[in-house]
Amino acid sequence: MSEHPALSALRAALGDALSTRPDELEAMRADYSGLRRDGMPLAIVHARSIDDVQATLRIATEHRLPIVPRGAGTGLTGGAMGGAGELVVSTARMNRILEISPADQLAVVEPGVINAALNAALEPHGLFFAPDPASRAISTVGGNIATNAGGLLCAKYGVTREAVLGLKVVLADGSLLELGHRTVKGVTGLDLTALMIGSEGTLGVVVEATVRLLPLPTGPTATIGATFGSVVDAAAASAAITAARLRPAALELIDAAALAAIHEHLGMPAPPPGATHLLVQTDGPGALAEAETALELIGAHGGRGGLTTDPREAEHLLAVRRAFHGAMAARGQVLIEDVAVPRSALAAMFAEIERIGARHGLEIPTVGHAGDGNLHPNFVYEGDEVPEAVWQAADELFRAALELGGTLTGEHGVGTLKRQWLEEELGTPQLALQRQIKAVFDPLGIMNPGKVF
Amino acid sequence: MSEHPALSALRAALGDALSTRPDELEAMRADYSGLRRDGMPLAIVHARSIDDVQATLRIATEHRLPIVPRGAGTGLTGGAMGGAGELVVSTARMNRILEISPADQLAVVEPGVINAALNAALEPHGLFFAPDPASRAISTVGGNIATNAGGLLCAKYGVTREAVLGLKVVLADGSLLELGHRTVKGVTGLDLTALMIGSEGTLGVVVEATVRLLPLPTGPTATIGATFGSVVDAAAASAAITAARLRPAALELIDAAALAAIHEHLGMPAPPPGATHLLVQTDGPGALAEAETALELIGAHGGRGGLTTDPREAEHLLAVRRAFHGAMAARGQVLIEDVAVPRSALAAMFAEIERIGARHGLEIPTVGHAGDGNLHPNFVYEGDEVPEAVWQAADELFRAALELGGTLTGEHGVGTLKRQWLEEELGTPQLALQRQIKAVFDPLGIMNPGKVF
Repeated sequence: MSEHPALSALRAALGDALSTRPDELEAMRADYSGLRRDGMPLAIVHARSIDDVQATLRIATEHRLPIVPRGAGTGLTGGAMGGAGELVVSTARMNRILEISPADQLAVVEPGVINAALNAALEPHGLFFAPDPASRAISTVGGNIATNAGGLLCAKYGVTREAVLGLKVVLADGSLLELGHRTVKGVTGLDLTALMIGSEGTLGVVVEATVRLLPLPTGPTATIGATFGSVVDAAAASAAITAARLRPAALELIDAAALAAIHEHLGMPAPPPGATHLLVQTDGPGALAEAETALELIGAHGGRGGLTTDPREAEHLLAVRRAFHGAMAARGQVLIEDVAVPRSALAAMFAEIERIGARHGLEIPTVGHAGDGNLHPNFVYEGDEVPEAVWQAADELFRAALELGGTLTGEHGVGTLKRQWLEEELGTPQLALQRQIKAVFDPLGIMNPGKVF
Repeated sequence: MSEHPALSALRAALGDALSTRPDELEAMRADYSGLRRDGMPLAIVHARSIDDVQATLRIATEHRLPIVPRGAGTGLTGGAMGGAGELVVSTARMNRILEISPADQLAVVEPGVINAALNAALEPHGLFFAPDPASRAISTVGGNIATNAGGLLCAKYGVTREAVLGLKVVLADGSLLELGHRTVKGVTGLDLTALMIGSEGTLGVVVEATVRLLPLPTGPTATIGATFGSVVDAAAASAAITAARLRPAALELIDAAALAAIHEHLGMPAPPPGATHLLVQTDGPGALAEAETALELIGAHGGRGGLTTDPREAEHLLAVRRAFHGAMAARGQVLIEDVAVPRSALAAMFAEIERIGARHGLEIPTVGHAGDGNLHPNFVYEGDEVPEAVWQAADELFRAALELGGTLTGEHGVGTLKRQWLEEELGTPQLALQRQIKAVFDPLGIMNPGKVF
């Protein structure tokens, strides 16, 4: 079999950075979504520099080669999977922190830096990068930007879009674009920095980011773990905490099916049927007072729980929530969904999940960032293929979220997984407009084709 | 003179909402920038509804009529001025608050609602809309969105982009686009809501906004007024406050020329030469402790001042800052600039302003949102035309800000005033890309032509 003509050009330009090792290519076919592309990508470029990315995209444009930008590959919607004939451009090895400026409360980083590594480097400065996806220990800042990643702290500290001041982006034709600025404010022209965030590799490859930092909250943190007889009561308590205008850093709900699975996974006694868990963490100078008010509201809604300011006890409470993904993975293949609804619709969405599960004979263990209305219903299944009943249930889940004024995806993105529902949420005219905007950045359509659009 | 053929179509569709009264058209030629268009606009549409805006834009498209979207006309860069042959579409009368949802901490508003009126309606709910431009008593939420307005509280509470969840927008062809959502998080497709914010009427007409609300800070507010011997010391103190990771709600600097003008305007004794004022306001549960630390830092940098938690005394301190615009307007015509620099470059930027003023024999009284590096140098002049020396000084000011890693405009926008510097900041390739994006929304180029681009 003769070699693809682009490969020799890539090899000449990139040397060792180009790999066609089968084991590496095999890994590129998948991400953390549980999906896998049918074919094998042509090659992977382990970019070491902006120059590498520019050279790669120039050659790709010349040869009309489809490009799949990729960070750590921890995405949950198949957005970074490389398929047959595609070139994966990984920025995972561009992982240097180029600058930390405490005076300007910003950092300049390469896209491959791991979220948690950046935060570890920031801690001595008393600063943090707010986006905290559950994948923070393994996901890259570039990937966080590609998906506009959220996490636990978003209602109080914002999503990735609020944490990025400027970007360097390589476009499909290999040109380098500098967007945004180092200033807190700036309104010169259209906000292309914001447009890039969450664009899932369809507009260009992020090769550098200037990120905004926040002061780490000081003083003790207060943590509450509470149990309710039903998810409706727990959701009502969570709504009451928001309505009281408290601003917990984290407000996490674990429904009965999820809680039972976690208990089983951790070897704990089974919780009473229907038992639902609510975790509240407050920080900053008002932490204790806020938590005390939250605990009163929890009691008023039938919840039982305790409050601690001891870090070890807090860690123990949080460990229950953190064990969720492990508990799911231990049961089989997992499809993790990501709907978000207005906070007032939280109880209604849980009721829908229960109805949909019952209709399809599926258990749908669900955890939720109750503070911002973002829910992660999980489907566990056997084998390599997502069963039809699961897709059917997921379809009903998305429609239910849209009906309640919500969205398909709060923080994971569209990727390949949610493409078929995109038009339903955006509407035909907006989708057409979005496609035209993509074409401005990528007239040949080589940037992450088949993802999102 | 025969009537423009579009006018009869507009009259038939809009009735009373169409006006060609000379006094009204005359007012449309200007905004608060001090600029004025040469010619007279064709007509003004006082839109009462989304339907009115759609009908207007359909007719405008048919007749290739240039459209100038306008709110209260309080912009400072000429972005909403209507010129010869143009149709001004005012959404000022679409000023209803359609919904306030304390449960979802959002409001749905028409674009003409005044920022302060919205906040007055929100106060009983213990919530607020964070963008607080100095014009908040007279500027509309639609105008705040068009310019991505900032204000005093941005370092802590964000700019307009962070406060908008969703938008309804009428495009040039009269079609209605619904962008964004009612949820805190949402990443379905490209973020066109963010792209619209700050687009200054070049992409479409904002006809409805779903805005995010924040809980009003509770407890006493602490306010510091301090005086320094020089602007360099005051800037250093302000940098130290940021470096100490305090998060004042407002951190405002008034330079010596500005302070002297304010004292004169208020009939107060002249301040000592070089005297510079720094205002600090902290809020939330840590307000007093934060202010005490700030006061120590001020003292360590040679500032003298006092701290109060008494609302009337605080009001007295803030009145000095608020008197600035009046003090300038009392002296003649005013050109208000809006550069922003990284906070670490604040002292350097003040030094540049001083040098530029000295070189051109101009006094440039300057106030700054020191907490976010956004400065408002003011030029006072006589007569209707901005003198050449002022333009020359402004030009040097913009270049100095860019040199320091800053931007032309922190919060006022580009409008007509800063168009000629746009390419210098964005670079030629990015400007070309932005123009193509505009063309996707507005292929005929009828949306606010001559503004920004």
